[in-house]
Amino acid sequence: MADDRIRCEALRSKVTDAETAAAMIATGSTVGMSGFTGSGYPKAVPLALAAHIEREHAAGRPFSVRVWTGASTGPELDGALAKAGGIEFRLPYNSDPIAREKINRGEMEYFDMHLSQVAPMAWQGFLGPLDAAVIEVTGIREDGSLIPSSSVGNNKTWLDRAERVILEVNRWQNPALEGMHDIYYGTALPPDRIPIPLVTADQRIGEPYFRCDPDKIVAIVETDAPDRNAPFTPPDESARRIAGHLLEFFRHEVARGRLPASLLPIQSGVGNIANAVLAGLIHGPFDNMTAYTEVIQDGMVDLLNSGRLRMASATAFSLSPEAAHDVNANMAGFRSKMILRPQEISNHPELIRRLGCLAMNGMIEADIYGNVNSTHIMGSRIQNGIGGSGDFARNAYISIFVTPSTAKGGNISAIVPHAAHVDHINQDVAVIVTEQGLADLRGLSPKQRAEAIIANCAHPDYRPALADYYRRARQGSYGQQTPTLLTEALSWHQRFIETGSMRA
Amino acid sequence: MADDRIRCEALRSKVTDAETAAAMIATGSTVGMSGFTGSGYPKAVPLALAAHIEREHAAGRPFSVRVWTGASTGPELDGALAKAGGIEFRLPYNSDPIAREKINRGEMEYFDMHLSQVAPMAWQGFLGPLDAAVIEVTGIREDGSLIPSSSVGNNKTWLDRAERVILEVNRWQNPALEGMHDIYYGTALPPDRIPIPLVTADQRIGEPYFRCDPDKIVAIVETDAPDRNAPFTPPDESARRIAGHLLEFFRHEVARGRLPASLLPIQSGVGNIANAVLAGLIHGPFDNMTAYTEVIQDGMVDLLNSGRLRMASATAFSLSPEAAHDVNANMAGFRSKMILRPQEISNHPELIRRLGCLAMNGMIEADIYGNVNSTHIMGSRIQNGIGGSGDFARNAYISIFVTPSTAKGGNISAIVPHAAHVDHINQDVAVIVTEQGLADLRGLSPKQRAEAIIANCAHPDYRPALADYYRRARQGSYGQQTPTLLTEALSWHQRFIETGSMRA
Repeated sequence: MADDRIRCEALRSKVTDAETAAAMIATGSTVGMSGFTGSGYPKAVPLALAAHIEREHAAGRPFSVRVWTGASTGPELDGALAKAGGIEFRLPYNSDPIAREKINRGEMEYFDMHLSQVAPMAWQGFLGPLDAAVIEVTGIREDGSLIPSSSVGNNKTWLDRAERVILEVNRWQNPALEGMHDIYYGTALPPDRIPIPLVTADQRIGEPYFRCDPDKIVAIVETDAPDRNAPFTPPDESARRIAGHLLEFFRHEVARGRLPASLLPIQSGVGNIANAVLAGLIHGPFDNMTAYTEVIQDGMVDLLNSGRLRMASATAFSLSPEAAHDVNANMAGFRSKMILRPQEISNHPELIRRLGCLAMNGMIEADIYGNVNSTHIMGSRIQNGIGGSGDFARNAYISIFVTPSTAKGGNISAIVPHAAHVDHINQDVAVIVTEQGLADLRGLSPKQRAEAIIANCAHPDYRPALADYYRRARQGSYGQQTPTLLTEALSWHQRFIETGSMRA
Repeated sequence: MADDRIRCEALRSKVTDAETAAAMIATGSTVGMSGFTGSGYPKAVPLALAAHIEREHAAGRPFSVRVWTGASTGPELDGALAKAGGIEFRLPYNSDPIAREKINRGEMEYFDMHLSQVAPMAWQGFLGPLDAAVIEVTGIREDGSLIPSSSVGNNKTWLDRAERVILEVNRWQNPALEGMHDIYYGTALPPDRIPIPLVTADQRIGEPYFRCDPDKIVAIVETDAPDRNAPFTPPDESARRIAGHLLEFFRHEVARGRLPASLLPIQSGVGNIANAVLAGLIHGPFDNMTAYTEVIQDGMVDLLNSGRLRMASATAFSLSPEAAHDVNANMAGFRSKMILRPQEISNHPELIRRLGCLAMNGMIEADIYGNVNSTHIMGSRIQNGIGGSGDFARNAYISIFVTPSTAKGGNISAIVPHAAHVDHINQDVAVIVTEQGLADLRGLSPKQRAEAIIANCAHPDYRPALADYYRRARQGSYGQQTPTLLTEALSWHQRFIETGSMRA
C-alpha cells in the first residue's frame, strides 16, 4: 500500500503511526502545520498530540505548543488541540469554534496577521525557531520531493524552517493533484529580494513539488481522511441582490472604459454572497476571465465549468462535498485551469497590485466614513481574523466589501456611526455593497462618503438614526473632516451588548 | 534671460505673465499642480489665480477649482487659494494652516489618500479628467523635454494626463539639479503592468527628464522664487531619547543577525525626532547605509555628508534654508548620492516590500493594542493626512512609529485606551517608541501588546489610568481578544475636548 504514495525508498523506513510521531513533539514546541480553510491539514498527528496532551494534563503535567498554520484548518487540528487546552499561541488565522471561544475567554494568545506576511516573518526570525513541521502531502516522489496536497499555504516555509519534519501522506487526496501546484522558490529576505516574475494569473513561475531535506524527516504517517469540506451555502435573496448590484457596477465600469471586457483577475471570499456573485458572473456578459485569489470555492468551480472563467489561481481548495466530487472526477481537465501557489505568492502585495485584482471580501461592519471592521464583533470579540483581506484590499484595483445590511434578525446594523474596530481604513475601501445598494466611494471626501453609504447601503430601519447622528455630528464635532460625536460613536455597540439590539 | 532656462526655440513664444496663464484656468476646472512638502510647487500662477478668484467672488461670481498635487505645497499655492475660498476639492495631502482650517470647518472637501495611489488612480479615470497642469520646472531642453525641479511628485502623470499644461520655469532652482532625477515611464494600468525593475535604492531605472507634448503647453511663466524651506527643528531632549531607544533597537537587531550591518534602506519622516534619529545614525555603528524614502530633509543631508549614508532616494527635498544652501553649493557632489523619483515609485508597495525598508513615521496617538492614528486629532479634526505612511508601514521590513508620550504640556497622552481614528492597523505597527521607551510588538497578541505598550511607552502620569482601564477591560469586555470597554474607550478624547486635558 505504501508503494503507491511513498515512492522514495530511503524514506519508507520513516513510516510510523500517529502516536509515535506525535510523541516527537515536546511541550513548549513551536509547530508549523499545513492547512488552509479546512483543506490539506494533517488529520492524524494533531489528534494524537491532543490525546497525548490530555493524558499529560490528567497526570498534572503542563503541556502546550505554539501552532502556526496557513489559515484555518479542521476540527481534528484546531478543534482537538484547543479542546485539550494544548495551544498557548496561535497564528495566523482561525475559524474553529472551540479555539475561537478559548481566544475570546482570554485563554489562548492569538496573533492575527496578514496572510502574505506569515512566511517572510517566519524567516525574519523574531517569531522564534520552528521546532517541528507537520505537513499533509499527496505523495512522496522517488527523489524525495513532495507532492503537495489540497492546500499549499506556508508549507514550503515550514519545510524549510523546521528542525524536524513529520509528514502525513493522505491517500484520500486525489493523485491527479500532481502537477497542479506551482511552488516558487525565488523569495528571499532583503537585501536579496528580486522582482517576482509573475505577470498574469495563469503563469507558472515555480515547480510542482516541495523540496525537503530527507534528513529532517523524522516520521511519515499514512492517512486516508477527508478534508473538512464546507457545506455549500446557497445564495439567499439578500446575497442575490448584493450580487446584482455588484454585477451592475462591473457592467457600468466596462461601459465607461474603466475595466476591460474580461474584467481583471477576481478575488473572492467564501460563503453565500461570494457564491451568488460567482453564479451571477456565469450569466453576465464577461468572458475569458481569470481569478487570482486565496481559495477555490464552489462558485469558482461552477464558473470554470461554465467556460466564463478561463483559469483560477489560489493557495487552497475550499469545496463542498459535491464540488470536491466534481473536481476529483475531472482533475485532469482542471489541471490546466487551476494553479495552487504558496500563500506568500497568492497574497503578495506586489502581485495583487500588478495584476490589479478586483477584490471582494465580506465584513462585519462599516462605519459611515467607510472604515471596515472584518474581525471583531462589538470591537473586542474576534470572529476569525483579518486573513488575506488586508493584502487584497490595499492593493486591489477596486477594493469591494460586501455584507447584508443587518445581522441577528435585524438587531445589528452592518452600517454604524463608528467602527468598533478597524481592519480596513477608508483609503482601502473603494466600494461597499449591501442588499440595499452599492456605494462607490472612490475619490470622495469623508462627508461625501457618509452621504453615499447612509443613502445606498444602510437598512431603512437604521437609516434615519444614522442620518440623525451624521447631521448632529456636522454640528457638534470637534473637527469637520470626519465628523464624530465621541460620546455616541460606540453607543450602538454598547446598546447591543446591553439590550441585544442596536435599535434605540 | 530666457535663453538659459528655455532652450527649446519653439516654446519661447509661449512665455507670458502669471495673470495671463492663470486666466486660462476656468472655474470648475481640475488642476494638477506640482509640489511636495513645500518644494517644487508653482509660485506665481496659483497666486495670480487666487487674485483672479477673489475678484470674481467680489463681483458675485462663483469660482473654484479642484486641486491635485504631490503632497503639501507652499503658502503661495494652498494658502493663497484656500484664503480666496477657491478650492472646492483637494487631494492627496495638505499641511497648509489656512486650508486645514477650511477643511476642519467643513468648507473644503479633502480626499486624504495613500501617496503611492495618486498617479494610478488618476489614470484609472474615476477622479474625472484633468483639465490643466501647472508644473514648476528647472528648465526646458532643446528637444522640449523638461528638467524637473526640487520635487518630482506626480508631475509625470499631470503632464501626461492634463489637457493643457502651464509651466513655471523657476530660475531660483539650481541648474545643477539636471541629471539628479529618475523618471520611470514603465508604469501602466492592468492588465499591462510588469515588474518594476528596481532592486536597490541607488538604481536608476528611468530617464532624467519629463516628456511633454509641446502642443499641450499653453503658457510658460518665468519665476525666481524660493521653495518654502522649512526651518530646521533641532532635536530636544525627548527626541534624543527616542532616537537613543531606536538606535539601541537597531544595534540589537544587527547583533541578533536579524538586520544586516548596514541596516536596510531607511525611510524617515520630517521634524525634530527624525532629525534626532538621523543625527544619531552619524555616530552609530552602521556604515554604507541607503535611504529609500519620500523626502530628503536636513538630517539626511548631514548623514550623507558624514559618509555613513551612501545614497538617498526620494521624491522631493524638504530642507531648511541652511541645508538648501549646503546642497546647492555641492550639487555636483550630491548628484551621485541622491535620486529624485516620481512618488508612485518612491512609495510603491512593490518596491518598499522588495527593498525591506525600515520605516520610521510620526503619529498622533497609538492605542494600547498598537492601532495608530496619524491624522485625526480627537478623531475628527484632520492635522495633515496619511501621506505615504500607509505605503511604508504595511510593506516595511520593520514598521516603526515614534512620538513623544504626551503633547500639549502633558494634557494629551499619545497612548490611549482606543485610537479615536485608525490609519495604521495593529498588523502594520511593529515597533512603537516614545521618550519613555520602545515596545517591540512583533509576534505579540493584543493582550501582550497592551502590556508592552503601557509599560514601555506610556508617560508615567497616564500609565496607572491605562493599566486600570486594561485591567477592568480584562474583566468586563464583551470578548477578550482585544479587551475594550465601549463606554470608556473614547472618554479620554471627550475629556480633553471638555476640559482641555485627558487627565481624570
